[in-house]
Amino acid sequence: MRSFSFFERFSKAFQDHPSLTRIIVVSTISGGGLIAYSEANASYGSNGSAAVVETGTKKKKVVLLGTGWAGTSFLKNLNNSQYEVQIISPRNYFAFTPLLPSVTCGTVEARSVVEPIRNIGRKKNVDTSYLEAECFKIDPSSKKVYCRSKQGLASNGKKEFSVDYDYLVIATGAQSNTFNIPGVEENCHFLKEVEDAQKIRKTVIDSFEKASLPELSDEERKRILHFVVVGGGPTGVEFAAELHDFVTEDLVSLYPRAKGSVQITLLEAADHILTMFDKRITEFAEEKFSRDGIDVKLGSMVTKVNEKDISAKTKGGEVSSIPYGMIVWSTGIGTRPVIKDFMKQIGQGNRRALATDEWLRVEGCDNIYALGDCATINQRKVMEDVSAIFSKADKDKSGTLTLKEFQEAMDDICVRYPQVELYLKSKRMRGIADLLKEAETDDGSKKNIDLKIEEFKSALSQVDSQVKFLPATAQVAAQQGAYLAKCFDRMEECEKNPEGPIRMRGEGRHRFRPFRYKHLGQFAPLGGEKTAAQLPGDWVSIGHSSQWLWYSVYASKQVSWRTRVLVVSDWMRRFIFGRDSSSI
Amino acid sequence: MRSFSFFERFSKAFQDHPSLTRIIVVSTISGGGLIAYSEANASYGSNGSAAVVETGTKKKKVVLLGTGWAGTSFLKNLNNSQYEVQIISPRNYFAFTPLLPSVTCGTVEARSVVEPIRNIGRKKNVDTSYLEAECFKIDPSSKKVYCRSKQGLASNGKKEFSVDYDYLVIATGAQSNTFNIPGVEENCHFLKEVEDAQKIRKTVIDSFEKASLPELSDEERKRILHFVVVGGGPTGVEFAAELHDFVTEDLVSLYPRAKGSVQITLLEAADHILTMFDKRITEFAEEKFSRDGIDVKLGSMVTKVNEKDISAKTKGGEVSSIPYGMIVWSTGIGTRPVIKDFMKQIGQGNRRALATDEWLRVEGCDNIYALGDCATINQRKVMEDVSAIFSKADKDKSGTLTLKEFQEAMDDICVRYPQVELYLKSKRMRGIADLLKEAETDDGSKKNIDLKIEEFKSALSQVDSQVKFLPATAQVAAQQGAYLAKCFDRMEECEKNPEGPIRMRGEGRHRFRPFRYKHLGQFAPLGGEKTAAQLPGDWVSIGHSSQWLWYSVYASKQVSWRTRVLVVSDWMRRFIFGRDSSSI
Repeated sequence: MRSFSFFERFSKAFQDHPSLTRIIVVSTISGGGLIAYSEANASYGSNGSAAVVETGTKKKKVVLLGTGWAGTSFLKNLNNSQYEVQIISPRNYFAFTPLLPSVTCGTVEARSVVEPIRNIGRKKNVDTSYLEAECFKIDPSSKKVYCRSKQGLASNGKKEFSVDYDYLVIATGAQSNTFNIPGVEENCHFLKEVEDAQKIRKTVIDSFEKASLPELSDEERKRILHFVVVGGGPTGVEFAAELHDFVTEDLVSLYPRAKGSVQITLLEAADHILTMFDKRITEFAEEKFSRDGIDVKLGSMVTKVNEKDISAKTKGGEVSSIPYGMIVWSTGIGTRPVIKDFMKQIGQGNRRALATDEWLRVEGCDNIYALGDCATINQRKVMEDVSAIFSKADKDKSGTLTLKEFQEAMDDICVRYPQVELYLKSKRMRGIADLLKEAETDDGSKKNIDLKIEEFKSALSQVDSQVKFLPATAQVAAQQGAYLAKCFDRMEECEKNPEGPIRMRGEGRHRFRPFRYKHLGQFAPLGGEKTAAQLPGDWVSIGHSSQWLWYSVYASKQVSWRTRVLVVSDWMRRFIFGRDSSSI
Repeated sequence: MRSFSFFERFSKAFQDHPSLTRIIVVSTISGGGLIAYSEANASYGSNGSAAVVETGTKKKKVVLLGTGWAGTSFLKNLNNSQYEVQIISPRNYFAFTPLLPSVTCGTVEARSVVEPIRNIGRKKNVDTSYLEAECFKIDPSSKKVYCRSKQGLASNGKKEFSVDYDYLVIATGAQSNTFNIPGVEENCHFLKEVEDAQKIRKTVIDSFEKASLPELSDEERKRILHFVVVGGGPTGVEFAAELHDFVTEDLVSLYPRAKGSVQITLLEAADHILTMFDKRITEFAEEKFSRDGIDVKLGSMVTKVNEKDISAKTKGGEVSSIPYGMIVWSTGIGTRPVIKDFMKQIGQGNRRALATDEWLRVEGCDNIYALGDCATINQRKVMEDVSAIFSKADKDKSGTLTLKEFQEAMDDICVRYPQVELYLKSKRMRGIADLLKEAETDDGSKKNIDLKIEEFKSALSQVDSQVKFLPATAQVAAQQGAYLAKCFDRMEECEKNPEGPIRMRGEGRHRFRPFRYKHLGQFAPLGGEKTAAQLPGDWVSIGHSSQWLWYSVYASKQVSWRTRVLVVSDWMRRFIFGRDSSSI
């Protein structure tokens, strides 16, 4: 039984050699195992509860689609036992995707970055169950999702079934975007899933083996060993860097024939790589890649991919065709078919992702939430509500706002419309008075006592330019999952005591504060034990120290102690023994 | 470069945080890493030599087919730099196959039991190179092997090439034997390769996921969770035991719907499982399996396998059909096509494996050696040579053997014909005189001084019944590889000073002593931290203590420090966290 405790497992084995074996085990475990034990043991202790389904009370059924960052974060943070969560996903595990580029070259093993979702679910006091299936249709009118299992189901070969929900949480993520460029789907590797990373690893080794065979022209060998990365975002850049390390540190000495024939090329359509980062990082990365011999071709739009060559167009319109051995396509994300179909149903057909309000509720639907890469938050514009805001703030209904009235309303406004706060910050203004001052600089007067609606509108007219779309990152998805779980936990409580801002176009307050993203920084590993880190407050760090910061952050962010121990021991293994080049 | 030493790798990373990071690293590595370092470092130091090909001297080219136990053992033990070894195999790694049953359930990871053959090769002072290709034809007349690469080669799509040899070492192993039973190839899993074990692991998890889906009848759920193992040999038994542990220790608590529906059935055509072991072990295993709920069906011959059911016939002739979810087929080994084809060419067409003499030379061929599962040693019979033996022993050509003459010849006879020694042992006779005595018990006389050829023949007439065929095990293959490498190393030396026994039908001595297998014992893990061990001298041990012996032996037999550390840490991980059930 899983409920065997750690000591029970061991004591069974200890019966025969009590002293000798205990010494062996204690000494071998010393490297981190003991600290892991407390967590593992705790989880064994509490697992019994998950199996017990309380059938007496009627629980609200939450259907959660997806086991990625958003879904798993939601699941981990949900604590209210009045829900019953039905997880549906074709992947029965959570994958720590930021380490996928490391998996492609064996710096970290695939299994070290995954954790079964059933493990994550059963540690909780919420009833959870999981179905390995893909949702292919959402029907909000009947409150059902339609799912398809990976394999045939019953003897009649039926593969489809439907599941009812009270609440639906859509966290299916996105898929790779080929921009409909011909040949991409057929000839390129993607880097979204664990299987993709495993395939890339095998293909890299296969390429080196192929290039070592006899009766091969030099030209052909060079083609086979030409690795092309399309997309200069963090994933593409990290993969190129990892591959370069793998080749120079491990493969070149094992494959003498390959020496001098390996080439890594990075194609980026924009003028620079890592454009979402600070300029210093971009420059450093481009210089480092150039020193490393990674050929960065900026302003290169891929137009077509054939079986053995890839065509790219420069900004000048010049098209060139480059022979390649392997391509990794990492240019951005596209919409999954089930989301496309759902968007059509609810009149969002022309969008890239599901539009939600600031509480992650899908616009135009009841009890449906969407988060992570499949959704974007449609931030309410101040200017759409400006009259309502004015009249809410004008408590005495005098038709003008006093400074006091304005100040009193400002807190709610800033919570409801984060762009106001961003606007204040970006203009480096300290407070409300400054905003008013700015609106009135034309006549230089400083009375500021009464504010008419036109002046109010004018003061806020530029505010909506500050609305920011959140990036499609793990960090955003994880924060959204945690936020939504907290909302679910306190659904009843906040129904009675709403904690959100005042409703501008209605009565009372919103139940919850809207979701607010807190950017904690971002890493770009550049190979050779160097990482670029951009932390909040424009703090930029590049080099070995950031690499160690990267190690610590990524180890601490692991979803379980098991994966944490495995990832850290994988790093150690790589330091000591290098990366494995077996073709499995 | 791979030639970065361990310290260089680290020191690069240490530049920024010398004190802090050093503490972290030293403390985390303490659990076994340090001992591994010395080996790893030594290998980095010596690797440069492999790349340097001495083109001046003309080396003898040894083509080695296969990277299994036999081939790898040959490669590891070969030390004479006058050879140039060309390894050809579709697998660019050596796999520690005795751990494959553990890989099927994630007790040990697939990558922990493999080591790249290029790593093994480059540590040596012998020039080695490797080609990832499958040999499909051996041509002894032109001293060539014809090979096919896994993927297309040049732009013309040519996949085939030929390689010349001076010496050919065939160590391609065997393949699973389906006995031409219909449906086996299409519907069963085998357990010969690492990929097989990985597929089984995924299929087991998939079965549990499938059985957890809704709209499934109880009957259908039971079918999906019915795991059938065909073959009661060590592999089949160990897999059944591993699967039982995986299910009861890890899966049942994660898959509440599966509880009570899981069934493991073991089909064995003979009257008992583990027939190659001592009766005590067989009995213990059958009893343990019965207690564990593993249904062992003895005397069951599989006659047909359909997509969802398997038909078996009892000894009474009764045919029954059993619905199943997954079958693992582990009944024995068959001949690979390339070996079949080669045997036809050299007139061995009606055999199961390549016949070699006692020096592992393929009969009827020059400079071709075969070892491991693809070969069997055709032990020369005493009775075929009995006249030659007599006349060699009869040094004074008197027509009769004196006791002294006989004793003098006995050493050579025992080396050349190991069955003589076995015969002596099996009859519990202490020496030669006893053998003679036995031959003469008819008339009761004890003079024993002169022995005529008829008496000599009569004394040896039963000896050949002791000829034993070696089992197709890793142990035999490894010993053969080491033996052959030693022969190759001393080929020249022993040409001048032969060290083998006297040639009975020729002049002088044989160059080397014939291969002699030394059985070191065998394990049969039975699950629940219990293993049966049968060691030389009829020493049988069953239980937890043998499990710890098993752990130590398997850890010590690992081919590299990397795999040793990984296997041991996998075992620790399993103890602490259980087995992973992610479907990857």
